[in-house]
Amino acid sequence: LEKFLIEEQKNLSKVNSWSRFITTNFFDFLKNGKMIRGSLVLQSFLFFEDNISEEAIKLASAIELIHSSLLIHDDIMDKDSFRRGQKTIAQQFREIAQEEKFQNSEHFGNSMGISVGDLGFFLGFELLSQISKKYFNEISFLVSQELSKVTLAQMDDVYGGFSCHEYSKEKILSIYRYKTGRYSLSLPFMLGAILAGQSPKTITILENIGENMGVLFQIKDDKINLFGESEETGKPVGSDIRENKKTLYRHFLYEASSKKQKKELNIIFGNKDINISQVENVRTLVKELKVLEKIEKISDQLTILVKNKIEELNFTENKSQVLLDFLEYNLRRNK
Amino acid sequence: LEKFLIEEQKNLSKVNSWSRFITTNFFDFLKNGKMIRGSLVLQSFLFFEDNISEEAIKLASAIELIHSSLLIHDDIMDKDSFRRGQKTIAQQFREIAQEEKFQNSEHFGNSMGISVGDLGFFLGFELLSQISKKYFNEISFLVSQELSKVTLAQMDDVYGGFSCHEYSKEKILSIYRYKTGRYSLSLPFMLGAILAGQSPKTITILENIGENMGVLFQIKDDKINLFGESEETGKPVGSDIRENKKTLYRHFLYEASSKKQKKELNIIFGNKDINISQVENVRTLVKELKVLEKIEKISDQLTILVKNKIEELNFTENKSQVLLDFLEYNLRRNK
Repeated sequence: LEKFLIEEQKNLSKVNSWSRFITTNFFDFLKNGKMIRGSLVLQSFLFFEDNISEEAIKLASAIELIHSSLLIHDDIMDKDSFRRGQKTIAQQFREIAQEEKFQNSEHFGNSMGISVGDLGFFLGFELLSQISKKYFNEISFLVSQELSKVTLAQMDDVYGGFSCHEYSKEKILSIYRYKTGRYSLSLPFMLGAILAGQSPKTITILENIGENMGVLFQIKDDKINLFGESEETGKPVGSDIRENKKTLYRHFLYEASSKKQKKELNIIFGNKDINISQVENVRTLVKELKVLEKIEKISDQLTILVKNKIEELNFTENKSQVLLDFLEYNLRRNK
Repeated sequence: LEKFLIEEQKNLSKVNSWSRFITTNFFDFLKNGKMIRGSLVLQSFLFFEDNISEEAIKLASAIELIHSSLLIHDDIMDKDSFRRGQKTIAQQFREIAQEEKFQNSEHFGNSMGISVGDLGFFLGFELLSQISKKYFNEISFLVSQELSKVTLAQMDDVYGGFSCHEYSKEKILSIYRYKTGRYSLSLPFMLGAILAGQSPKTITILENIGENMGVLFQIKDDKINLFGESEETGKPVGSDIRENKKTLYRHFLYEASSKKQKKELNIIFGNKDINISQVENVRTLVKELKVLEKIEKISDQLTILVKNKIEELNFTENKSQVLLDFLEYNLRRNK
């Protein structure tokens, strides 16, 4: 990934000096990610091949590039200033604007952030076009289509953050399925398998494992957002609450709360200026109203589904264990 | 294009109901464009083939899809509410937000606009992935790389709109070359020729013609933005002035104006609330200070360059005439 970006920076430097941004701030942002999606592409490839190929690395890198670019746009929509323990791209430009005393630093930061995100998509698709002819059409089609789906899910998510309409449990789970499941897990699993020349049947099982595992990951992300501390997560405390994200926690919390409690919650959720004690109140209520238990029940059901599908793959014990370990990792992780 | 979008809408409707947007508002926005880039892909293809193929139409449609998506992001950066004689996508969402009494309709509109733009990119790359294996890698590489370049040029453009630094004539022409020339003309010309199996030599000549023609088109666009009326252009009058766009007109205007005139211009350029009489003042000054003549001189030089390169193509007279007519069209057009 670094090699590709350095090459690109050289190549694009004839356009203008913003190209330096590719190997500095943009790369810094990229490399501080968990790189789960890229790793999963490689891991999936390794389920079927003995060694990682150069092509698999290109594919994994392209996925990371595109993913980071989606996050850059996501942070603009969520008005987040921190991500991956550092300033978001838009925020970095807001500060440039402040230094240079531009009239509207917020808008400048967002505009440049939109552009950097777009740039990342195009760099990602360029890297993707280095995949050999045999697999390129199929891979490019799949990547684009899943990205379309995740963008539609993102629109729902943005709308949900503004709207007072409540989403049903099913609706929330559907967003999780498309936004995290298919995109973050099914897609990398499928890509690795396609590049390893696997059958449609195997690819479909991996797709299904990814979807359900993804919902489990999103549920854990929500929990970390709610209970995690800023130093560990690299994100401001309670950002989902401030943004009024329609999470499963929020859903069960509202469902179980009294009229009086709902009134209190309405003051907190969607409020940009909440303090830590208000986040603490939400945390307490989540525990008191047994929201954690309800969500754990859903998680347990999904875990069983995933385990059954892993068996269907007929992998060797070692390889199945990799997938089971990944499930286990999600239960343990705090960021 | 319409057929593809209807198919996609069906396919994506299982994600959520935002997919309906693809065949309604998004398609309305698409079809109201001039579709110059898509037409140029087809025209270039027809320089070498007798009939337009289904594949050429897919390629042309993909380019239009991606282009419209860039414009959707562009309009957010420029805070434009109108484009192609209708409300911009972000503006449509701002009004939805107002109807639904969301807290921050501006931010909601921008967020949804960012997503719709992203969606359009991905739909475009999906359509592109239907190109046959023989040409797909090369085409996908070229499209992505030119889009990276245009995005870097866009960053310069945004920065220029905020910054008080003046850009040199060369810098402005370089932005024109990358933002309009390479992207809007070289790229479609090259794509049509690649799909028609042409030699690198021919493709390079078309690339060069596109670059210089593109600068001519941008200069004309600037003129229309400055002198055109809203009903005709579909854009608010003087939007480049309000956004303090570093155009060639602005450059020569500042260069030729007295200290007193510069002071007046500083009040007008970059001012979001200018009225029609202030735009009129700029127009008068542009004429008085012979800015038009200076720019015409540059245009004339570029026209000669382009005509020489057209000869190098060794086309039949009919085919050369198509390119010459296109040059001519640019001189005449008022929108």
